[in-house]
Amino acid sequence: MDQNNTYEKLSADTLAARLGGLAAVTDRVGADTSKWMVREVGDGNLNLVFVLEGPKGTVIVKQALPYVRLVGDSWPLPLYRAFFEHQALFRQQERAPGMVPEVFHFDKEQALIVMEFYQPHIILRGKLIAGETVRNLPEMLGAFCARTAFRGSELSMASAEKKADVGLFSGNVEIPAITEALVFTDPYYDAEMNHHTPGLDAIVAKVRGNALLKQRAQKMLMKLASNTETMVHGDLHSGSIMSTDSDSRVIDPEFAQYGPMGFDIGMLTANFLMAYFSQPAHRDAADLVGYQAWILETIRETFDNFNTEFKHLWKTERTGMLYPKALFEDQGQSSDAVCESVLADILQDAVSFCGIEMHRRVLSLAHNADFETIEDTGLRARLEARNIAMGAELILNSDTITNIAALTAMAERFNAGDYL
Amino acid sequence: MDQNNTYEKLSADTLAARLGGLAAVTDRVGADTSKWMVREVGDGNLNLVFVLEGPKGTVIVKQALPYVRLVGDSWPLPLYRAFFEHQALFRQQERAPGMVPEVFHFDKEQALIVMEFYQPHIILRGKLIAGETVRNLPEMLGAFCARTAFRGSELSMASAEKKADVGLFSGNVEIPAITEALVFTDPYYDAEMNHHTPGLDAIVAKVRGNALLKQRAQKMLMKLASNTETMVHGDLHSGSIMSTDSDSRVIDPEFAQYGPMGFDIGMLTANFLMAYFSQPAHRDAADLVGYQAWILETIRETFDNFNTEFKHLWKTERTGMLYPKALFEDQGQSSDAVCESVLADILQDAVSFCGIEMHRRVLSLAHNADFETIEDTGLRARLEARNIAMGAELILNSDTITNIAALTAMAERFNAGDYL
Repeated sequence: MDQNNTYEKLSADTLAARLGGLAAVTDRVGADTSKWMVREVGDGNLNLVFVLEGPKGTVIVKQALPYVRLVGDSWPLPLYRAFFEHQALFRQQERAPGMVPEVFHFDKEQALIVMEFYQPHIILRGKLIAGETVRNLPEMLGAFCARTAFRGSELSMASAEKKADVGLFSGNVEIPAITEALVFTDPYYDAEMNHHTPGLDAIVAKVRGNALLKQRAQKMLMKLASNTETMVHGDLHSGSIMSTDSDSRVIDPEFAQYGPMGFDIGMLTANFLMAYFSQPAHRDAADLVGYQAWILETIRETFDNFNTEFKHLWKTERTGMLYPKALFEDQGQSSDAVCESVLADILQDAVSFCGIEMHRRVLSLAHNADFETIEDTGLRARLEARNIAMGAELILNSDTITNIAALTAMAERFNAGDYL
Repeated sequence: MDQNNTYEKLSADTLAARLGGLAAVTDRVGADTSKWMVREVGDGNLNLVFVLEGPKGTVIVKQALPYVRLVGDSWPLPLYRAFFEHQALFRQQERAPGMVPEVFHFDKEQALIVMEFYQPHIILRGKLIAGETVRNLPEMLGAFCARTAFRGSELSMASAEKKADVGLFSGNVEIPAITEALVFTDPYYDAEMNHHTPGLDAIVAKVRGNALLKQRAQKMLMKLASNTETMVHGDLHSGSIMSTDSDSRVIDPEFAQYGPMGFDIGMLTANFLMAYFSQPAHRDAADLVGYQAWILETIRETFDNFNTEFKHLWKTERTGMLYPKALFEDQGQSSDAVCESVLADILQDAVSFCGIEMHRRVLSLAHNADFETIEDTGLRARLEARNIAMGAELILNSDTITNIAALTAMAERFNAGDYL
């Protein structure tokens, strides 16, 4: 098949004709395109996603759209983000092997990535709404966050290589701009695309009226926009994780950028907390307590595993220019306390990012299904208000959270409160 | 004159032949090269610098050397730094007009910049050693630091433009690597190129034995290496400032990079403090107290002017995505306290960078003339020890310095102490 000279949207009907000649695809699904089955499964905002099943196997075909799907073509978005997504996938594969989809084929002009299909995995958010537990989830997520954070930083990477990578990713402007606006700024004023559940007006006004809170949120925006500590996934929530009952993988790093080491785990924690606060609408009283406890335990264990893995890498892979052994071990000094101080800083950042993500998912444009599927808007408002109140507490008093148990204990308090 | 195809070092003898055909040069100094007078004045470590005087005027011709002059050709250094220097000069000229040399000509292949000559300005460090005061110095330096910090950040710049600039400057690897190693790491272990004054062994061992101090220094290294808040000069010390008795300009931004907003003013403060601590070796008792007081007053006023100018820009030029008016003024809220909090963070960073710079200038490779010209090594050690002790205090307890008067008061205490 000839290379297309201009971008053209894929469809389930044209997919076989357009990809049938690519060995990278036919090797995996089989060459007889008449036996290909294609279904579009994209439920995100920015892309077409197809499952392509053939006699030999199944792959995912993901194509970037030139606009934000949720809003339509009034919000154009550059196709080059597919380039950054496949670059991010390569780096994550290298830094956290086996935890992200393998890339089989990339077509820059068509903004198209053919990659590994996970089966029988489903999106974790759906499992959290359905009340299903996932074994090994904190182990996988803690390790993923620690490995990508550490190995993408100058704790590990050679500075020249890391700086070249920062230069490369600085070409990705529009995608980080979405995060910058939707996450950090829009929730805190009456932005055009905002919406929130009826009944929340009073608490929303309270949040937007708090100048200190907004100051702290903007300080974290400055950190995200300016602090290139490591390559972050950039959008690590329960909709970017696919799980079976015991195996989990991370997908969709199209928001990847260089950013603070605490960003991913903070955003992830927020999404677990929103799953937690939403549970009273999804569970019978009989199951509620146990499942909520499992979510908080997942948060605690994810951080525990993050810390354990980070400390392991600190001891075994600290080859970059930061905190070099010449200053500590080579002078006969332990650097354990130094590593703890780095982890304490990461926790501080994570807690602040967490609080902001909790706000934007109920106040800004892109809400999440945990709350959004609650049809009783009165109940939804009560649960979202707990989430908003705790988010504010985390942003304003992040320094009081010196360990993750303090955060989950705080969640239990807010879960019992009424903030309407 | 034909463009050279390969880099060739300039000399006073070849300069007329090589630049005599350039209108950008002849327009300013005159076309009759037989009347040109050339003298080499470079006293830095990395470059050839010529003063080219002709019948019409005088210009500076600066050419990067492919190695570190101080060390020799065993330490190669890429010529592309001249490209970044002239890019930095353009940006500084735009952001702080009239405070840096105008660029008349740039030749990438020859790593050569022809620029404005300042007369009768001399290097400020020489004036500080000679005990000369400079009027308007804090006004100029405070404004320079505030304008370049603010206007190079996303407080002011459009994010796309700023990110493109970060990408451009991320190509400059070796020059920041010098700062990273010589300033933040080498002082704190027995690095090969280190040297220090005899008599300091005990205090040096104490500093190098303090794991918390090294942890904090490395945290600041991570900030410098990862935090692209604004384009910093990168090497703003009294040797990068040229002054008459009332007019001052900033030169030599070849260490420019994107970094923290507090970096330049912190490094600058350290160099004033070293001038301060070195004074007992350069002044009679009759002049000592007054001149030391003038230096501390210069530090205080520089910060005062920095704060005043930053607040002015905050009110008048806050057009970037950070701390937008939509979150404050447009909601009827003052953002004055928010600006104060940003300034408080800048001060914290500045104080920490200051302490580190105070250490590296007496412990690492590149010392400065304030101390280095003191021939009595016993006296030099006593004065350097005060500087080392205060540097350690600043690094360890930067959070106790909440205003600049606390820093100058601390300097007076250390100036009266004996730390050998």
